[in-house]
Amino acid sequence: MHIAIIGASGYTGGELMRLLANHPSAEVVCATSRKQDGVPVTAVHPHLAGLTDLAFQNIDVDSIDADFAFLAVPHTAAMKVAGALLERGILTVDLSADYRLPKAIFEKVYGVPHEDYFEAPYGLPELHRDEMQGAAFVANPGCFPTGAALAAAPLAERAHTIIFDSKTGVTGAGNTPSATTHYPNVGDTFSAYKWTTHRHLAEMKQEIAALGSDARCYFTPHLLPVNRGILTTAHILLKEPMEQDEVEALYRKFYENEFFVRYQKPTLAAVRGTNFCDVAVESEGDRVVAVSAIDNLVKGASGQAIQNMNLISGFDETAGLRFAGMAP
Amino acid sequence: MHIAIIGASGYTGGELMRLLANHPSAEVVCATSRKQDGVPVTAVHPHLAGLTDLAFQNIDVDSIDADFAFLAVPHTAAMKVAGALLERGILTVDLSADYRLPKAIFEKVYGVPHEDYFEAPYGLPELHRDEMQGAAFVANPGCFPTGAALAAAPLAERAHTIIFDSKTGVTGAGNTPSATTHYPNVGDTFSAYKWTTHRHLAEMKQEIAALGSDARCYFTPHLLPVNRGILTTAHILLKEPMEQDEVEALYRKFYENEFFVRYQKPTLAAVRGTNFCDVAVESEGDRVVAVSAIDNLVKGASGQAIQNMNLISGFDETAGLRFAGMAP
Amino acid sequence: MHIAIIGASGYTGGELMRLLANHPSAEVVCATSRKQDGVPVTAVHPHLAGLTDLAFQNIDVDSIDADFAFLAVPHTAAMKVAGALLERGILTVDLSADYRLPKAIFEKVYGVPHEDYFEAPYGLPELHRDEMQGAAFVANPGCFPTGAALAAAPLAERAHTIIFDSKTGVTGAGNTPSATTHYPNVGDTFSAYKWTTHRHLAEMKQEIAALGSDARCYFTPHLLPVNRGILTTAHILLKEPMEQDEVEALYRKFYENEFFVRYQKPTLAAVRGTNFCDVAVESEGDRVVAVSAIDNLVKGASGQAIQNMNLISGFDETAGLRFAGMAP
Amino acid sequence: MHIAIIGASGYTGGELMRLLANHPSAEVVCATSRKQDGVPVTAVHPHLAGLTDLAFQNIDVDSIDADFAFLAVPHTAAMKVAGALLERGILTVDLSADYRLPKAIFEKVYGVPHEDYFEAPYGLPELHRDEMQGAAFVANPGCFPTGAALAAAPLAERAHTIIFDSKTGVTGAGNTPSATTHYPNVGDTFSAYKWTTHRHLAEMKQEIAALGSDARCYFTPHLLPVNRGILTTAHILLKEPMEQDEVEALYRKFYENEFFVRYQKPTLAAVRGTNFCDVAVESEGDRVVAVSAIDNLVKGASGQAIQNMNLISGFDETAGLRFAGMAP
Repeated sequence: MHIAIIGASGYTGGELMRLLANHPSAEVVCATSRKQDGVPVTAVHPHLAGLTDLAFQNIDVDSIDADFAFLAVPHTAAMKVAGALLERGILTVDLSADYRLPKAIFEKVYGVPHEDYFEAPYGLPELHRDEMQGAAFVANPGCFPTGAALAAAPLAERAHTIIFDSKTGVTGAGNTPSATTHYPNVGDTFSAYKWTTHRHLAEMKQEIAALGSDARCYFTPHLLPVNRGILTTAHILLKEPMEQDEVEALYRKFYENEFFVRYQKPTLAAVRGTNFCDVAVESEGDRVVAVSAIDNLVKGASGQAIQNMNLISGFDETAGLRFAGMAP
Repeated sequence: MHIAIIGASGYTGGELMRLLANHPSAEVVCATSRKQDGVPVTAVHPHLAGLTDLAFQNIDVDSIDADFAFLAVPHTAAMKVAGALLERGILTVDLSADYRLPKAIFEKVYGVPHEDYFEAPYGLPELHRDEMQGAAFVANPGCFPTGAALAAAPLAERAHTIIFDSKTGVTGAGNTPSATTHYPNVGDTFSAYKWTTHRHLAEMKQEIAALGSDARCYFTPHLLPVNRGILTTAHILLKEPMEQDEVEALYRKFYENEFFVRYQKPTLAAVRGTNFCDVAVESEGDRVVAVSAIDNLVKGASGQAIQNMNLISGFDETAGLRFAGMAP
Repeated sequence: MHIAIIGASGYTGGELMRLLANHPSAEVVCATSRKQDGVPVTAVHPHLAGLTDLAFQNIDVDSIDADFAFLAVPHTAAMKVAGALLERGILTVDLSADYRLPKAIFEKVYGVPHEDYFEAPYGLPELHRDEMQGAAFVANPGCFPTGAALAAAPLAERAHTIIFDSKTGVTGAGNTPSATTHYPNVGDTFSAYKWTTHRHLAEMKQEIAALGSDARCYFTPHLLPVNRGILTTAHILLKEPMEQDEVEALYRKFYENEFFVRYQKPTLAAVRGTNFCDVAVESEGDRVVAVSAIDNLVKGASGQAIQNMNLISGFDETAGLRFAGMAP
Repeated sequence: MHIAIIGASGYTGGELMRLLANHPSAEVVCATSRKQDGVPVTAVHPHLAGLTDLAFQNIDVDSIDADFAFLAVPHTAAMKVAGALLERGILTVDLSADYRLPKAIFEKVYGVPHEDYFEAPYGLPELHRDEMQGAAFVANPGCFPTGAALAAAPLAERAHTIIFDSKTGVTGAGNTPSATTHYPNVGDTFSAYKWTTHRHLAEMKQEIAALGSDARCYFTPHLLPVNRGILTTAHILLKEPMEQDEVEALYRKFYENEFFVRYQKPTLAAVRGTNFCDVAVESEGDRVVAVSAIDNLVKGASGQAIQNMNLISGFDETAGLRFAGMAP
């Protein structure tokens, strides 16, 4: 299968190329970038040297010759090309936010009109695998919502309040330098940001509600002095107290057939570079602490996108993604 | 005033010496250590070279010739010498946990009998300054409870639930190597620990209750890949919703006369090395996010101990502590 | 091919398992550990969860049923079992220092008698591939000498003096906690260690001499606040000045057929988790700065060991090792 | 003494304000910034909250009402105002590069004409204290040259070759975000930069020559994932071999009266936040490894500038600078 990556010079583009380099059935044939037209991919992503000879191309979606496309562009950029890809029959996973939310909610949360709305399944396979059957276009979830939804899903119905306190590595902010990502503003320090206003809350609410829950959801993200990873501490206040054994059994059962969700004490290290989500829970009666760890660039973006590609292309869902994390 | 530091080879002992080196009215004359008897202080604390010529001594409390003592020893070690210091009329601030809680609660939380219990004021000056008047012995608060209590205090009475999600630097674990503090287990990673069972929760509950609050309190600590600092994100669920303006005004008013509590967006960097606690709040109606940042070794330990020394010795409360944090 | 890993609970053992999990022709069937007998491998290496069901075994070399063995034990431990593996016809790569140096030099440098000496090829394929043909036992190089030799090899004969100034991540110190690896002694700081006395200098001198060079060699290592990687800055003082073009051409030519040596500006990030060694040079006439970057646990240990396994087992030399580094 | 800081919004400006906040005889009365005109200093430097009420001013040098000025502006900006300060009789320490080198060398190294050249003493008090007597204008040394010169000075005359291999924290790059300082390009990685071409080499050569040495000097800087500090490993090749005892005695003697140079094993942690330079040496006969550690923003910039201010203002040279480093 021939793959095009639209917007391949950023972190998620680089991760798609890193991961697809070892995929048994897919080959990247086109990596687009407006700014890096003609530049060898390895000049931007030197870690890929020896594994790709591609150069970035600045080409229109209409000129792309591929069976499958990943949209690794910012929100509002995806909606400008999604329709053309669909029309040309190119299966697509969109890593942007453009098709994750209903139109009205998208427009409210992102503060822009949606120029080309259509419905797309929300590509969190562990919760929406059935809805993705036969899909031609999948909306890849946000990084925070992935970790949050997987942390809380088994208990969602039993909760009245869920507070997601998340801590992310700096790659979540992308590869454009800014004061936020300036090393001395991050190294050996720590802080919260968008304490009550992060856009990903809308996806979290959507996912918790989709699980049949009426729990109130809150979300506060923090910036860690690490490159990769999101650890989400979900403080789950229960309608009725539950014992530890019961909660743990519920989680183990919920994820027993999921290759990418492992029930073990989460650390960023153990999932680093992989598509795994590690989850565990501890109950103190009326509050359960459920913690998840993912790599924001893999399960939180490019790895999950490949998992979705596998699903809608008929490959083994884990193809190209069955490898261990790099720890320590 | 002549100062003795009992247990001076650890991090809090080192910080006491660092800070007291510039105190206008106090001089460290005795630094005890069992293991480092006769060793120059600067062999253990090389950053103090040029500022002290003391050597560690392994001596009994009975032999100490000083006006004031800091107990910088582990819990259960303090109770073995506290009585002797009191009897000898040596004013004391105890940095251990031994006198922070009522006897029964201490014994339950720490799982050991208290061999020499007496009541001591809880040395969090911003909340207990009056109770410390004339005290001869002060129990210095734990690091997490300091940050937690200062984050939540102004809203405590209006809350029904408070969840303290805290993130600490590694020096909080002391200077003894262990798997927990092994660099590759901490660097570029992140995790929660003692998800529902950390002993400091007892102090937090005590402080919130002392403010007249009946809020339920929960606490989950996390380990950051940084040396110093605790950032506490207090998720405060209110009995009645409050607007941002009202909440912020409440905090500014509550701390308007406190030199060491600054109302500004907290980061670990801005308080690094100092006795400041930075606090700010953001309301989304029924939930308020209150965040505090302290240096766990200063406001969370040795700096607050000196603040307490100043208070019970009749010095200016800020003496020796009026300096800026080292940022970045 | 069935693989046994002798000493599988440490970092290099964990890396062997991580890398071999995706090897097309090799399967780990035995992972020994004295201390972790019966413990699931994933309890010690949680990043491997989902990829192995093995438990550690405490068994003798005589009881191992495998075609190939890796010795991932400390120096002096390898020499106790190497002979038995040879006798049983089990092909072996030894990651310890026991067979890297001639007997007399080993005994002098390591200060212990060698109990079972025999000659083994030095497993740095880029410099010794021919000598490894048909070998039954290979001595895997030290981490620092790998980076140093590859940085200096093309210029060795033209140098009169080579100073290796190396900077390593903390995993090089192993997984046993110590003051050296205590997070607060490493995080946000930096220092040199064993300024003139590191044992790996002997391997460096051996390799430079083996290249026909009479250059004097010096070596000073430093400890970085990172988990993985060694960057070696080789300050090469030339007998006769050389222009940049000439030096660069020499390096490109020297490594043109080496998959694992890439001529590009080295950073630890670009080689992280991989068997690549990135190298580049800059000349200022009589001094050339040659810099190399490797992952100390991969090209500096377990990855190179698998490269050697591939070589002496008749597999493609890059089998299981053709994947991109994890960056950022 | 009233102090003006010209260019106070950057890192060195912030450090000047942090350090001067506790100076017994100096008070900052004016902090200029073009971009931050009218903004409270603590909005840019929140760690100074509680210690200053100043706001930045965008004013001309002609309007400054102060006894003493620090120029904390980039090179070429200092030369535009230096003359006016001199003319107005305002004693000045210039932290830029504009007056550190002879005119011709400055113009060659920095590639720009010098618009207003005059001679100024090079403000490295340990080597040039006598030349600073009665000076009205001092050129504050570069950060790398400070650490390099102090590391090599005692042996300079006996060396034929000195290679400075330096490793710096990220604050050395200033507070403007760039790809170089983007967290994911620095965190958990390491690299060399300007391998043979860093401008500070000119200052190093000047200082080594000023010590009566004819040694060849080389310099390669590296970027550490830490905020502050420069560790310089000086590989000193001797004309005649020297024993360890002799070398160490030479260093101890050379610096015996220098408060800010401490003979002890250097780490960045022990000098963090301070004006100390820690130095030690190890000889292996014909090569001596001399290592120094400084805080690049203090002894490498603002602290040394205050030391120079003290000197030319007749204060105790250590006034305001006698405090311990923040470690760990």
